[in-house]
Amino acid sequence: MSDRRVLVTGASGFIGRHVLSPLLERGFEVHAVSSRTPPSETGGLRWHRADLLGASCPGELLDDVRPTHLLHLAWYTEHARVWTSPENLRWVGATLRLVQAFAERGGERAVLAGTCAEYRWGGAGPCIEGRTRLEPATLYGTCKNATRGLLAAAAAELGIAVAWGRVFFVYGPDEAPARLVPSIARALLAGERAPTGDGSRVRDVLHVVDVAGAFAALLDSNVAGAVNIGSGERVALLDVIERVAAGARRPDLLDIGALPGRPGDPRELVASVARLRDEVGFAPVFDLAEGIGATVAWWREERVA
Amino acid sequence: MSDRRVLVTGASGFIGRHVLSPLLERGFEVHAVSSRTPPSETGGLRWHRADLLGASCPGELLDDVRPTHLLHLAWYTEHARVWTSPENLRWVGATLRLVQAFAERGGERAVLAGTCAEYRWGGAGPCIEGRTRLEPATLYGTCKNATRGLLAAAAAELGIAVAWGRVFFVYGPDEAPARLVPSIARALLAGERAPTGDGSRVRDVLHVVDVAGAFAALLDSNVAGAVNIGSGERVALLDVIERVAAGARRPDLLDIGALPGRPGDPRELVASVARLRDEVGFAPVFDLAEGIGATVAWWREERVA
Repeated sequence: MSDRRVLVTGASGFIGRHVLSPLLERGFEVHAVSSRTPPSETGGLRWHRADLLGASCPGELLDDVRPTHLLHLAWYTEHARVWTSPENLRWVGATLRLVQAFAERGGERAVLAGTCAEYRWGGAGPCIEGRTRLEPATLYGTCKNATRGLLAAAAAELGIAVAWGRVFFVYGPDEAPARLVPSIARALLAGERAPTGDGSRVRDVLHVVDVAGAFAALLDSNVAGAVNIGSGERVALLDVIERVAAGARRPDLLDIGALPGRPGDPRELVASVARLRDEVGFAPVFDLAEGIGATVAWWREERVA
Repeated sequence: MSDRRVLVTGASGFIGRHVLSPLLERGFEVHAVSSRTPPSETGGLRWHRADLLGASCPGELLDDVRPTHLLHLAWYTEHARVWTSPENLRWVGATLRLVQAFAERGGERAVLAGTCAEYRWGGAGPCIEGRTRLEPATLYGTCKNATRGLLAAAAAELGIAVAWGRVFFVYGPDEAPARLVPSIARALLAGERAPTGDGSRVRDVLHVVDVAGAFAALLDSNVAGAVNIGSGERVALLDVIERVAAGARRPDLLDIGALPGRPGDPRELVASVARLRDEVGFAPVFDLAEGIGATVAWWREERVA
C-alpha cells in the first residue's frame, strides 16, 4: 500500500477521467469515486461507487479508503441549469461533509475544483488569485466561492492543507454536447449548418487533459489556497470556432453571429497562471491548435463508432 | 389548522424557548423542534424531537409538519468552542438542507439567526445592514455569513423569502453559566468574589425576551435580508457588571479589571436598529436596568430552587 492514497470524486466525469493516469504516474494509490457504475479496474486503481449526496456517505467511504489526499471534482453539472439551480446548495453541504470527514480520519491534503465564476466579471486584465475581487454573479459561483471561503477559514482547525483549483474554460473529448466545441464539431461533421455567436468574447481555454494534469500537479504540490487553472492566453471564441471548422474541414457551414450573446456574460475572462506555472510548476501540453485538432478528431471517431 | 404553520428549530434553546409565546400570540400554529426530550405540550404548540444533523432529517420532519414559515435558531453553541470549532461547518450544511427541503415542500418564508460576528470588527460607529463591511474574524462568523450569502443568492430560485436576524449580545434567564452576566450573578449571589475584565468594551446588549420578540416580529413581517437584532444603545460592559452587582447587592465582591481582555475582541460592537424599529416595527420591552434586575432576580430564584 502506498503511503499516499488519494480519493478522487467525480472520477468518471469530464475532468475526472483524465486525472487518474497522472495521479498514478505521480505514485499515488488512486481510489476513484463515481455515482455511476464504475469501469473495470486497472493496475493501482480502485473504483468505489458512492452517492456523495446520500445519507451514509461519506463516512463509510472514508472509513474504507482512509485517504491521505482528497481530490474533490464532483459537483452538480447539468449544463443548462448549473448557473442557477438550488442543487448547487446541496453540493456545498456535501462538500463540507466530505472534507470534514476526510480531516477527522487523518486526511492531510485536499484539493477541490473551483471556478472562474467566483471572480467578479467585467474587470480589466487577467484574474489574479488573491487580488481580483471575488464577487460571483451566479448562484453556482456563489456556492463555489462560499465553499472555498469556509474551507480556507476552517483548514487550520481541521488540521489539513487545502488548495482550490479555479477552472476556466475546458474543452476536449466527451464534453457535454450542448457546449461550444462539441455543438459546432458535431454539426459540421454531420454536414449540418452551425449557428454561433459573434465570437467576440475572449476566454481562457484549456484542453481537459491539461486541466486534469494541473489538478494532479496541484495535489502533488505544497501550494495552498486558490490557484487558477488555465492557459493564461487571451483567446477570442471566434478563433476557437474557426479552428473547429478547419478541423472538420467545413468552414462553409458556419453561421457566425447567428446566435445572440448571453446577457451577463463577461466580455473577457482570462486567468493569470503565474501561481500555476511558478509555484505548482505546471505547464500545459496542448496548445490551442493541437488541442482543438485532437478534439475534433475525437468527435469524428465518435461519429464513426 | 392555522394557515400559518411555523417550524421553530432550537426551540428549547436560550432564545428559542422565549419565541414560542409571541409566535402563538401572533396567530401561528407553532411546531417546535428540539434535539432534547421536549417539554409537555400546551395549547397550539406541538413539539417534535429531531436531530437536524441526522441523516433522515429534515425531510421526514418537514413532510410531517408542512410549514409555511421556518424560524431556524438551532446552531452549534458550545460556549468555549463556538468561535473556532469545525462543528460550525456541519451546521452550514444542515441549515442549507433544512431551508432547501422547506422550500421544496411549499414553504414561503424563512427567518434565520445570524450574528454580529458577520461584521468586520473594529470600525467606527454602529453596524449598519447593507453598509458595514461583512468580514468575519472567526470561523463561526464565516460560517454564519456564508450561509446567509448562499440563501440570499438562492432565495429567488427556491421561491421563498429569506430574512436574517443578526443577533448582538443577549442576556437573560438560563443563559450559559460561563457567560458574563450569569458568571458574575452566580458568584455574587453565592457570596463569592467575581473577577471581571475592565469593562471598557462597548456592546449592544438586549434581554433574551426582546431578542425572541424581535424574531417573532421579523417572521411576521415582509422584511427580507439582514436585520440587526439589538437595542441600538452603546453600553459599556462596566455598566452591565455594576448593574448585576447592584441587583445582587454585593458590589463589594467585584474585582474589576482582574481578568485580561480577550485578544481580537473589538472595542465597540453596536447595532444600528433602524431596520428593526422602522421596517419590522419592533421595540424592546426591557431597558437595561429592568432587564438586568429581572435576570439577577431569576438567578436568585434558581439558587433557592
